[in-house]
Amino acid sequence: MLGNFSYCNPTRLYFGKDAMKGLEEELPKYGKNVLLVYGGGSIKKNGIYAQVKAALEKCGKNVFEDAGVMPNPTVEKLYEGVERARAAKADLILAVGGGSVCDYAKAVSVSVHCDEDPWEKYYIRFEEPTCEIVPVACVLTMVGTGSEMNGGSVITNHAQKLKIGHVFGTEVFPKFSVLNPEFTFTLPEYQMIAGFYDIMSHILEQYFSGTDDNTSDYIMEGLLRSLIHSAPIAKKNPTDYEARSNIMWTATWALNTLVAMGKDTDWEVHMLGQAVGAHTDATHGMTLAAVSMAYYRYIMPYGLAKFRRYAVNVWGVDPEGKTDEAVAAEGLDRMEAWMKSLGLVMNLTDLGVKEDMIDGLVKSTLVMEGGYKVLTPEEIARIFRASL
Amino acid sequence: MLGNFSYCNPTRLYFGKDAMKGLEEELPKYGKNVLLVYGGGSIKKNGIYAQVKAALEKCGKNVFEDAGVMPNPTVEKLYEGVERARAAKADLILAVGGGSVCDYAKAVSVSVHCDEDPWEKYYIRFEEPTCEIVPVACVLTMVGTGSEMNGGSVITNHAQKLKIGHVFGTEVFPKFSVLNPEFTFTLPEYQMIAGFYDIMSHILEQYFSGTDDNTSDYIMEGLLRSLIHSAPIAKKNPTDYEARSNIMWTATWALNTLVAMGKDTDWEVHMLGQAVGAHTDATHGMTLAAVSMAYYRYIMPYGLAKFRRYAVNVWGVDPEGKTDEAVAAEGLDRMEAWMKSLGLVMNLTDLGVKEDMIDGLVKSTLVMEGGYKVLTPEEIARIFRASL
Repeated sequence: MLGNFSYCNPTRLYFGKDAMKGLEEELPKYGKNVLLVYGGGSIKKNGIYAQVKAALEKCGKNVFEDAGVMPNPTVEKLYEGVERARAAKADLILAVGGGSVCDYAKAVSVSVHCDEDPWEKYYIRFEEPTCEIVPVACVLTMVGTGSEMNGGSVITNHAQKLKIGHVFGTEVFPKFSVLNPEFTFTLPEYQMIAGFYDIMSHILEQYFSGTDDNTSDYIMEGLLRSLIHSAPIAKKNPTDYEARSNIMWTATWALNTLVAMGKDTDWEVHMLGQAVGAHTDATHGMTLAAVSMAYYRYIMPYGLAKFRRYAVNVWGVDPEGKTDEAVAAEGLDRMEAWMKSLGLVMNLTDLGVKEDMIDGLVKSTLVMEGGYKVLTPEEIARIFRASL
Repeated sequence: MLGNFSYCNPTRLYFGKDAMKGLEEELPKYGKNVLLVYGGGSIKKNGIYAQVKAALEKCGKNVFEDAGVMPNPTVEKLYEGVERARAAKADLILAVGGGSVCDYAKAVSVSVHCDEDPWEKYYIRFEEPTCEIVPVACVLTMVGTGSEMNGGSVITNHAQKLKIGHVFGTEVFPKFSVLNPEFTFTLPEYQMIAGFYDIMSHILEQYFSGTDDNTSDYIMEGLLRSLIHSAPIAKKNPTDYEARSNIMWTATWALNTLVAMGKDTDWEVHMLGQAVGAHTDATHGMTLAAVSMAYYRYIMPYGLAKFRRYAVNVWGVDPEGKTDEAVAAEGLDRMEAWMKSLGLVMNLTDLGVKEDMIDGLVKSTLVMEGGYKVLTPEEIARIFRASL
């Protein structure tokens, strides 16, 4: 049953081949000082950096740079970004990159005017911002996290072996995001397919809860079918605009809060994957892929009706003459085959996890309620072991 | 292929059994003078009026009333509403009712401070508002139009035999809408099922265009399946909260601009239905139902691949060993059977249309581009005749 909720998503999106026009439309609405945040510099090679700089200059902005945001942004980098934003007196933080860069920009935005330690306040105590928030905007170059239209912000603390996400309210959502599918064409295949699985995982985290015929579940089945259709096309031909644009749009709607409305969710695959990320610094989407099959096969009996529905409505399994268990299992088999055909990392060993790291991974895994099964530490260890 | 677009939907929704709490949260954000707009008074019988008044009084508002908004709001009523809003110096227009009341509230909102004739400016010349717009909010009591989260506003001019919709920009969208599925429980069955078909028609108007594998089409298939599942449950038991809540949520997303993103649309069924509405004052959803089968069977050959996909993905037609035409036709047959089982009006004769009115209907029908076939006057006449 759809629970009670309040919904609003204020982010304005500019989508398509001419989406950069949106940047020039929006920039005049903000103050002079722009902190330009990006990652390892690939945007300088593919020309996106030059386009963004040209738009900023055309709009007469003072540009301050904060480069080197890593794939799993660290708390140390966050402290550095806060200093840079303060020095720049930033009126706008413009993230140019993927989810990590956008997540990081949000973390900086709520920390610039915060007197407390942001790691402690937002990621340990999960408090809401009480200070002025610097507006964030995004030019997306990598698809997956949905960070371009939500309040999610994941930060990693290597010293504490913790990778934690805070989902902020709408006041922290990007004010606008520029989504040009062509900007994702030059992404290396490994990152591209990791992003594809990140999208699937976002949908499944919200799909596998409840026992009803919730409209949100029907929308998610549509998003999943779109992704399953387009991902192999994009792998074969990364410059297929139709496939890349549909995947980009699917990614945004997979995690911009819509499909979670009225549902309980536990996000346990992300909790498992984030523990792996904190210990190995592996690519986020691959950590999710590596633990997913063991996790879903383990919880299947606790949400059997939904796993059966998933098999039939998403993977086209013919249920005729089969037990519910057989139908559900066949759906997961097809999902695994699709993942393998994409080239996703299907086990933790390939991400550098060894048997003797499992105790540590279990300790780093947050246990959540809202799904079909609240995991015990023994069950978490069992899932990690089955994923080796 | 997904075209270029810009997307933003600023409406905040409060959904569920306790959604009225949202009204009390929001009211303090607006000025003292509230113009309370509603229809024929059913809200006084079912207690919703009393709840709304209590919230307004609790928030210390000066309440001015504008009752008697008819199912197809007329241009004369619009002029009257503008006078009332001016006299009240309205800071907020609160629509309590279904799509007609909400559509009307938007028409008033853009006309209060407008020096020109609003019918001419907005509905004949399709101009955008250039004056101050009075904020609109909505407490929804009837599901179908999606008016609670979009800029649509349909006004009827009986003298000119025209029923015309203007789709305003986000500045005219309701600032917030209160969606309590229980508020729809007492709606008479005829209006309820007319609303269900209105939802389906909204989705199909946006679905039947293009030849690609657009993510929006996949989302629409999910919305359609949710509606097809829940509508018969709601007909059998109108107080089934799960069914009514899912339908309410489906209706909002069917027409809050999301699924149209990157697509061409012609809305031709609405053009046909609105002509019927202008001549007969019949219930909107029923005018759509009465012309749909003749229209879709006529255009099927022009969009055969999509009609085949519709049959398979939405209606579960098994395509094995059948021609594309046979699969597509079977999908439309299943749709027709579902419509009949709901008790929808399946022909124009039952809405009071006679053969000799067809010339007038054709003249009142706007012809649009963006779908599979731009209709000629002869084709429109043929579709109306086949719908008698």
